[in-house]
Amino acid sequence: MPDTVDDLPGARDTARDIAQGRQTAEQAVRARLDRIADREGDLSAWVAVDAEGAIAAARALDSAPSRGPLHGVPLGVKDIFAVRGLPWRCGSPIWQDRIAGFDAGSVALARAAGAVILGKTETTEFAGYNPTRTRNPHDAARTPGGSSSGSAAAVAAGMVPLALGTQTSGSVIRPASFCGVVGYKPSFDLIETGGVAPLSRSLDTVGVFARSVPDAALAVEALTGLALQPGAATEIGTLQVYRSPVWGAAEPPLAAAWTEFEAGLGPLLDEQRFAPDIEAELAAAPALHARIMAMEAAEALAHEYARAPDLLSDGLRAQLAEGRAASAKERAHDRRAMRRLRHLFEGHVAPDSVWLTPAATGPAPAFESGTGNPAFNRIWSLLGLPCCSVPILRADGGLPMGVQVVGAMGNDRGVLRVADWLMRRF
Amino acid sequence: MPDTVDDLPGARDTARDIAQGRQTAEQAVRARLDRIADREGDLSAWVAVDAEGAIAAARALDSAPSRGPLHGVPLGVKDIFAVRGLPWRCGSPIWQDRIAGFDAGSVALARAAGAVILGKTETTEFAGYNPTRTRNPHDAARTPGGSSSGSAAAVAAGMVPLALGTQTSGSVIRPASFCGVVGYKPSFDLIETGGVAPLSRSLDTVGVFARSVPDAALAVEALTGLALQPGAATEIGTLQVYRSPVWGAAEPPLAAAWTEFEAGLGPLLDEQRFAPDIEAELAAAPALHARIMAMEAAEALAHEYARAPDLLSDGLRAQLAEGRAASAKERAHDRRAMRRLRHLFEGHVAPDSVWLTPAATGPAPAFESGTGNPAFNRIWSLLGLPCCSVPILRADGGLPMGVQVVGAMGNDRGVLRVADWLMRRF
Repeated sequence: MPDTVDDLPGARDTARDIAQGRQTAEQAVRARLDRIADREGDLSAWVAVDAEGAIAAARALDSAPSRGPLHGVPLGVKDIFAVRGLPWRCGSPIWQDRIAGFDAGSVALARAAGAVILGKTETTEFAGYNPTRTRNPHDAARTPGGSSSGSAAAVAAGMVPLALGTQTSGSVIRPASFCGVVGYKPSFDLIETGGVAPLSRSLDTVGVFARSVPDAALAVEALTGLALQPGAATEIGTLQVYRSPVWGAAEPPLAAAWTEFEAGLGPLLDEQRFAPDIEAELAAAPALHARIMAMEAAEALAHEYARAPDLLSDGLRAQLAEGRAASAKERAHDRRAMRRLRHLFEGHVAPDSVWLTPAATGPAPAFESGTGNPAFNRIWSLLGLPCCSVPILRADGGLPMGVQVVGAMGNDRGVLRVADWLMRRF
Repeated sequence: MPDTVDDLPGARDTARDIAQGRQTAEQAVRARLDRIADREGDLSAWVAVDAEGAIAAARALDSAPSRGPLHGVPLGVKDIFAVRGLPWRCGSPIWQDRIAGFDAGSVALARAAGAVILGKTETTEFAGYNPTRTRNPHDAARTPGGSSSGSAAAVAAGMVPLALGTQTSGSVIRPASFCGVVGYKPSFDLIETGGVAPLSRSLDTVGVFARSVPDAALAVEALTGLALQPGAATEIGTLQVYRSPVWGAAEPPLAAAWTEFEAGLGPLLDEQRFAPDIEAELAAAPALHARIMAMEAAEALAHEYARAPDLLSDGLRAQLAEGRAASAKERAHDRRAMRRLRHLFEGHVAPDSVWLTPAATGPAPAFESGTGNPAFNRIWSLLGLPCCSVPILRADGGLPMGVQVVGAMGNDRGVLRVADWLMRRF
């Protein structure tokens, strides 16, 4: 089980090498195109690779002053983001022939910071649960997870040092865990969402995949103008571990590795506790998340549902039907419940809080079984909290699993600081 | 100064007439096309009128069972919403030749409920402050307000009984006030925003223009599945009046009409009071709103800024430059301040609260002066609260001005109930 991400430099190293003249942006791009040529046949991570456009963009960067912190860094973009001149299929036959006429805001910001877009990565159907053809780089018989399947696999295979994805239930954290890379879903709405096909407006969050926490932070800094680098904390204090109300979903390999991880924390280990009323709310959150997502997805995909219902998968059509069937009373109740939970939680949790919980229920399951279970992600997605998965656990046989660092709303720096510390320590 | 909205039926009456066979959808559409033919030369409310498509859609509806509550109701759509096959220019020369390939979610939901889309209405440049060519139906020498200029003017002139708009600072409430129609901006994110060109993701809210509060409620019910009809309340209790920290911006005609309005409430009049710390936060909110809007607009329009900066207006380019210039520290501070204010306010205000405040600083100003002042709107847009403007005040000379009903987050029904009562009483 080769650790496929270690033989080409990460995002910061790529940018530094280019800035210091040790390689050109064109060389950086060509090295990744070579890697794609090597691995894509096995992995199917890409909807479209724009080799010509990427080389032209890299040459333009090589003959100009630095544009920003991502100058020359190759980037993969999930196929629900609009990228001008490239396909914008959203994993659906409905949009098989669509070419985007503009860049999503986040894509334009990445370009403005110097990123070179190598192409569009595979997504599940409209970033929902219906799998795409992408395989897990650690084991082609397994799923890379979803919905940001291609972005996670491409970073794991070294095809790009950085990729954009989105999370509505667990679509950044879960594939990062399955593919053994860093996945960072910032606080809700931290990154511009314009030009990204919507699934659930209260939940959809742009995030990134990278091979280290500082690389992920670099990308989000470039997209937000915020200062997010974790620095190199040596003292971390105690760490709050939280098995959460969904611990029952943990599969044996995860449960074993988690118990070992807790033991390994030694005197740093502390248990995260919430007040009983908050615990009760969190226990109800996964079901509320699923209902909100179904209701809002039915609205976001109203055009597709009206024009081409037969081209939606059975699973998605059933989810939309569930959302459409909600009564006025249920809709009002669920929107109020979501608002109330967010408000309660924000009032309850100290703004510098950070806790650790599993990123997924186990290692990547078989390809045929779907994209895996988002049980450990729904609560935090519903709350809009910053999450970062670091691939520091291993199942028997070596398959990666992630530790998910979660923080209070807006505490992205705290999350990244702990995540980086964990990566260096374990 | 003719009251231009009273000679063609409103949305509910149109739907009822069609349902009861008193007119066909095609007749309803043709009556509005005739009105457009009469008035468009003076008003320039439309980017594109799709007469052929609308008549075809109406005929299809006439030969089929009812599709929903808007069956046969003509609808105008602000030109920042994608409508399949129609221009999607966003008030900018950058997108002069763009035709949308899909429907925005809200547009698809309106169609699914039976609405007939007559065309795209004029918007200011990307729904910001740079005016479009539309004139005020009450006085062609005056602005209709912005940014939903064409939607407000079209409803005021009877060209459609219903139109979609959006508000980021005051773009529904202010033009509704200037044009003498009902404008309803629901609670933030109540209506699907996918396929609407973004300006500021924390603030952008889809809203509607209509000629009565029940008509506005009908439209938002169709787009959300919620039950929002105000009923016909006869008892309303006391009414909280709130001049707010921006009262200094009130111009003499508004100040005079407002004082008279307060006096007219007689024993129903009460004063809305917030705790001193909340008052201080609200006083700082307009400046915070402007900074958030500038920062997020720079991200939302990153593609346009990168590709065609010369095709942006000077005013918008300056606003984007201000947003881009914000430091990491200012960005973090302002995002935290917005979150904190929303949280504080939600904890402070009873969920059934409603208060009355001016919709705009005065009647519509001269066309050449811009689109008017959003001072009375910024605070509530920043908080994401439901607002409804009812055109029950008059300046000397008869120009309309609105009373803005604002409610606690999620209290859309309370807002509409009071707004409807005011319309019936005054």
